[in-house]
Amino acid sequence: MNVCIFTWMDAKLSLCSACNVDTLSCSRVAFSVSLYTGDTFKCYGPFGVDTIIAYQHIFINLGMAYNMATGIFTVTYPGVYSLAVTSFSDAGSPGNILAVCTSLQVNGQIVAGSRELNRNDQEDSTTIAVALKLKAGDKVSVKLAKGCYLCDDSNHYNTFSAFLLYADA
Amino acid sequence: MNVCIFTWMDAKLSLCSACNVDTLSCSRVAFSVSLYTGDTFKCYGPFGVDTIIAYQHIFINLGMAYNMATGIFTVTYPGVYSLAVTSFSDAGSPGNILAVCTSLQVNGQIVAGSRELNRNDQEDSTTIAVALKLKAGDKVSVKLAKGCYLCDDSNHYNTFSAFLLYADA
Amino acid sequence: MNVCIFTWMDAKLSLCSACNVDTLSCSRVAFSVSLYTGDTFKCYGPFGVDTIIAYQHIFINLGMAYNMATGIFTVTYPGVYSLAVTSFSDAGSPGNILAVCTSLQVNGQIVAGSRELNRNDQEDSTTIAVALKLKAGDKVSVKLAKGCYLCDDSNHYNTFSAFLLYADA
Repeated sequence: MNVCIFTWMDAKLSLCSACNVDTLSCSRVAFSVSLYTGDTFKCYGPFGVDTIIAYQHIFINLGMAYNMATGIFTVTYPGVYSLAVTSFSDAGSPGNILAVCTSLQVNGQIVAGSRELNRNDQEDSTTIAVALKLKAGDKVSVKLAKGCYLCDDSNHYNTFSAFLLYADA
Repeated sequence: MNVCIFTWMDAKLSLCSACNVDTLSCSRVAFSVSLYTGDTFKCYGPFGVDTIIAYQHIFINLGMAYNMATGIFTVTYPGVYSLAVTSFSDAGSPGNILAVCTSLQVNGQIVAGSRELNRNDQEDSTTIAVALKLKAGDKVSVKLAKGCYLCDDSNHYNTFSAFLLYADA
Repeated sequence: MNVCIFTWMDAKLSLCSACNVDTLSCSRVAFSVSLYTGDTFKCYGPFGVDTIIAYQHIFINLGMAYNMATGIFTVTYPGVYSLAVTSFSDAGSPGNILAVCTSLQVNGQIVAGSRELNRNDQEDSTTIAVALKLKAGDKVSVKLAKGCYLCDDSNHYNTFSAFLLYADA
């Protein structure tokens, strides 16, 4: 009878949550990272080509899905994810032409971009917040457009975060 | 005995999760949409009256709660929802007076607004991020104030997203 | 046998969800607050010292973890939380030097900041969105840097929100 009950439970839980009652494990994924760990205010870029941003400071990396060496979040559990990217830029001196030009990408395709072409404002911040259905193996990253740059210090103005909202059945 | 166990389970799960063990169904709701699907950068508005924004590009619409024809998210499952709106505007030429003036509305009442009355900055982006308790039948939308406009292309600078966080018991 | 089944269930649920099957209670926490309730557009600050912002308007306070008197969210259930802060400032007249300088703090330490030192832009909005692992008793707040100020009315441009994503086992 236990088997029957467990099977029934398994069906319910696998339908409705991120739990795997067979392996007693959970499909929990949540990461939140920022550009730099250090206290010194410095800038990332500009580069001559579009570049995946390798965020170096880890707030949390539950499930180890984010790879700090590459900046890529590789989806392990298929399902619906909530994703957020905040980007900030500073020209260093008033009057400079600024551009915060980051985009959220899945497998190299743009999902959502943030753009502030800025002619008179010294600093600007933008946030992307979307929910996406992702497959196992999908590679998610934030790309910095060529010629653009982001600046940060230990205040962590530039962040990239995602978490598993609903695991697939 | 099965009945008893199932009833007990039902009480637990309906208290703590979005699962309905009676119907084997789940109260999963997550949508994320953006303004346009096409590649051409174009603007929505300005209009002579306040207008509900009918976002046309669907990233995800789990539970089909968002209606693309009307721009309205009608709540099916009561509970706590996380909601996010990102709005972006571009004057097209430096020096124009810009205004990103969108508001998140529930049943026609403003919940939260985003405002960047912009005199010298060519482009601006703002994000609303709130959690709300919503009732079944509540109608949630993003309203564009009269005289304001949003601009976008396939970079999806303007997004509207929500997901069910905790279903009511 | 019931005990055995319940214990097994307990193990599964406490691993994978926010449910406590012993007490029939749930570790649900979600709050979302904004600066002011009234219709009048007014500003908070500037102050001579860094000040914790006591947001006065409550959208939701499930679990009563946010204290309106102090502006502090005290963590009751350890786990992974999603947090968001949107800050907005208005100089009142064009040409003023603006600074939106809020930071998200845990136990008095900066987690993430938002900064728009603004020389030519009259209004600016920034959003912080991160996920954090928090311990029971952690105190989370939004600090306004000295000399800075936020402005708002019933449009709720300035918000502070968080919810429990994954409760610890």
